[in-house]
Amino acid sequence: MVKINDNYQKLQGSYLFSTIAKKVNAFSSAHPEKKIIRLGIGDVTRPLTPTIIKTLHASVDEMADEKTFRGYAPDLGYDFLRKAICDNDYRSRGCRIEEDEIFVSDGAKPDSGNIQEIFDADCKIAVCDPVYPVYVDSNVMAGRAGDYDEKTGRYTNVVYMECTAQNGFAPELPKEACDLIYLCFPNNPTGATLKKSELQQWVDYANKNGSVIIFDAAYEAYISDDCPHSIYECEGATQCAIELHSFSKNAGFTGLRLGYAVVPKELKRGGVSLNSLWARRHATKYNGAPYIVQRAGEAVYSEEGKKEIRGLIDYYMENAKYIVSGLEKAGYNVFGGTNSPYIWLATPDKMTSWEFFDHLLEKANVVGTPGVGFGACGEGYFRLTSFGSHENTREAVDRICNL
Amino acid sequence: MVKINDNYQKLQGSYLFSTIAKKVNAFSSAHPEKKIIRLGIGDVTRPLTPTIIKTLHASVDEMADEKTFRGYAPDLGYDFLRKAICDNDYRSRGCRIEEDEIFVSDGAKPDSGNIQEIFDADCKIAVCDPVYPVYVDSNVMAGRAGDYDEKTGRYTNVVYMECTAQNGFAPELPKEACDLIYLCFPNNPTGATLKKSELQQWVDYANKNGSVIIFDAAYEAYISDDCPHSIYECEGATQCAIELHSFSKNAGFTGLRLGYAVVPKELKRGGVSLNSLWARRHATKYNGAPYIVQRAGEAVYSEEGKKEIRGLIDYYMENAKYIVSGLEKAGYNVFGGTNSPYIWLATPDKMTSWEFFDHLLEKANVVGTPGVGFGACGEGYFRLTSFGSHENTREAVDRICNL
Repeated sequence: MVKINDNYQKLQGSYLFSTIAKKVNAFSSAHPEKKIIRLGIGDVTRPLTPTIIKTLHASVDEMADEKTFRGYAPDLGYDFLRKAICDNDYRSRGCRIEEDEIFVSDGAKPDSGNIQEIFDADCKIAVCDPVYPVYVDSNVMAGRAGDYDEKTGRYTNVVYMECTAQNGFAPELPKEACDLIYLCFPNNPTGATLKKSELQQWVDYANKNGSVIIFDAAYEAYISDDCPHSIYECEGATQCAIELHSFSKNAGFTGLRLGYAVVPKELKRGGVSLNSLWARRHATKYNGAPYIVQRAGEAVYSEEGKKEIRGLIDYYMENAKYIVSGLEKAGYNVFGGTNSPYIWLATPDKMTSWEFFDHLLEKANVVGTPGVGFGACGEGYFRLTSFGSHENTREAVDRICNL
Repeated sequence: MVKINDNYQKLQGSYLFSTIAKKVNAFSSAHPEKKIIRLGIGDVTRPLTPTIIKTLHASVDEMADEKTFRGYAPDLGYDFLRKAICDNDYRSRGCRIEEDEIFVSDGAKPDSGNIQEIFDADCKIAVCDPVYPVYVDSNVMAGRAGDYDEKTGRYTNVVYMECTAQNGFAPELPKEACDLIYLCFPNNPTGATLKKSELQQWVDYANKNGSVIIFDAAYEAYISDDCPHSIYECEGATQCAIELHSFSKNAGFTGLRLGYAVVPKELKRGGVSLNSLWARRHATKYNGAPYIVQRAGEAVYSEEGKKEIRGLIDYYMENAKYIVSGLEKAGYNVFGGTNSPYIWLATPDKMTSWEFFDHLLEKANVVGTPGVGFGACGEGYFRLTSFGSHENTREAVDRICNL
């Protein structure tokens, strides 16, 4: 008799954003006349830019001609894209990353969920609290998280690094030994960043303890000050860090699906190169991102592409400014929104996150994300995103301010 | 100190097709003047058909307009595609499969590699020998396969179901209890098929023993006789089988990436619906296939699309016929090629599969796949595919026949 993977039974409820979608659908069915504004899930709303569209059409045409048709992509990504990534995201910043350390994928979500597979089942993981749920859930599924404790709202075998207003949402180095450390800066959900000197402390900690840092850089394009865009700007990071990137939030590829992981060749544990393990994982279980999407990714790095992507980010950051200043004027305690598309706010009147979610949905018809969905330390907080249109964002903020 | 997943160290060499690619590249570098014909990896060569191209352009244009732009796809696939699949691949065949039992993905390779995750680490797996390597390797990575035995060329904890010329490459029911049974018919690599009555025996075995069958139907479009296209044509299969499909080999989507898995709601083990487990896995670790690719998938089922796809299959099957009849005339012992794009032949002169690979590469400049790459029972066999152009296929066959 087949037995199922019992670790799945330890997962709590359904995935956060599925729960939100269900609640919103129920409200919408009950009140079809209400115009709901969604500032919840981090999905972009601006269309793909002209250079990307042009590139997609051109590469679709290539697929129509036997002379230029492309079948299976190289497992690890087309050379043209790996080179563009390497030149623009690393060499230009003085990071010593080579093309064969770049693994093209269908997004940072799959990468952040799958990366744990190349590590031992007994690895101790450490995550920020609050945290992007995929880091934890993928480790629950793999049996690394222990059991869920209803009282604490936490898994017994995970080290939670608390990120609160007191520490500026920057975690402190863990006191116990941790093997696999997930960091995301600019942070989802809090919008917090780390200075280079702060990030260097994590790299030093990891190198001292033999830990590996999974650094999620999905929001680096939103950095407006001198925070590091890549962990490889820190000394020694190629010996302890894997970096994950996405084309979703900079170029609006949420519906196209493209991302990449960087696994440096000199990152070894037990004498084994993690680069070779991840390459083997890719070759066995993945079959490459679509050619047309990889060409679109390459176009993101063209001169025109860069300008257009800058325009997208500026558009969303104008929203972020409007949300921050509007909510601050209305008396909310607001964080994030300067180096990040996310705004993290303390719920008013001692409401729980889900109470505030329901309150906002029912009274303002605005959808946000309850902070507790990201972890126990997210209780009493709420996440809004700046990925709406100007019009919707302003209307949503005005509605919230008039509650 | 992080420990790596030691199971990766049990994997043998690199993935089969990577090894072949390296050998071919080495030969090509040494002999740049030789025209190599590749009938090795199962990659298609015909361009995408006009209806698919038209649909791709139209959906790219939708992504350019904020009114029609699509961000994140629904985790489990767009309703329009799930409905098209359900109507055309199941309802039309009298199979009772519902839309919410269809999980759209980026291909049958990822699905066949990932599906094992929802089962217990101690499940006993059974595979055909020879077999598509992903089934075994993904279980090696998960620690289910035991150790590799150099003498037998097999993993100690896997049940190998031998497929030989003696049993017509149709495996016999295992004598020991097996939990997870991988079947692929029409078969890769042998091209063998099962009659409905034969497949029914497997369904009955699985239902009797509480096993789950992973049925890989990637090649069903090549069936030319009355073999079942889906395992759900068998009585009781919705209680014991997961089916995997691909758009790669029928519609030529190897470079577009699209597939789907069917996990029936009434398929339960330990009281838990596997449908809900796979839904949770998708929601946590996957983020949907690109919108434009899902629209292309829908177009495969349009009237025009169906005609064009039939044309592609007929094109490749003309190659298959040419290969089979040519090699038979030249005295080779040939299997497959009637319900399948694969031709499976016994190597001549007691050559091993890799000896024949080198022989063919060096003397005829033709690339095939050594049978032993698919398992111990593949030793002494060789796989050719019919996915080349007519011209290349004929030239390759003529070269082999003139050796």
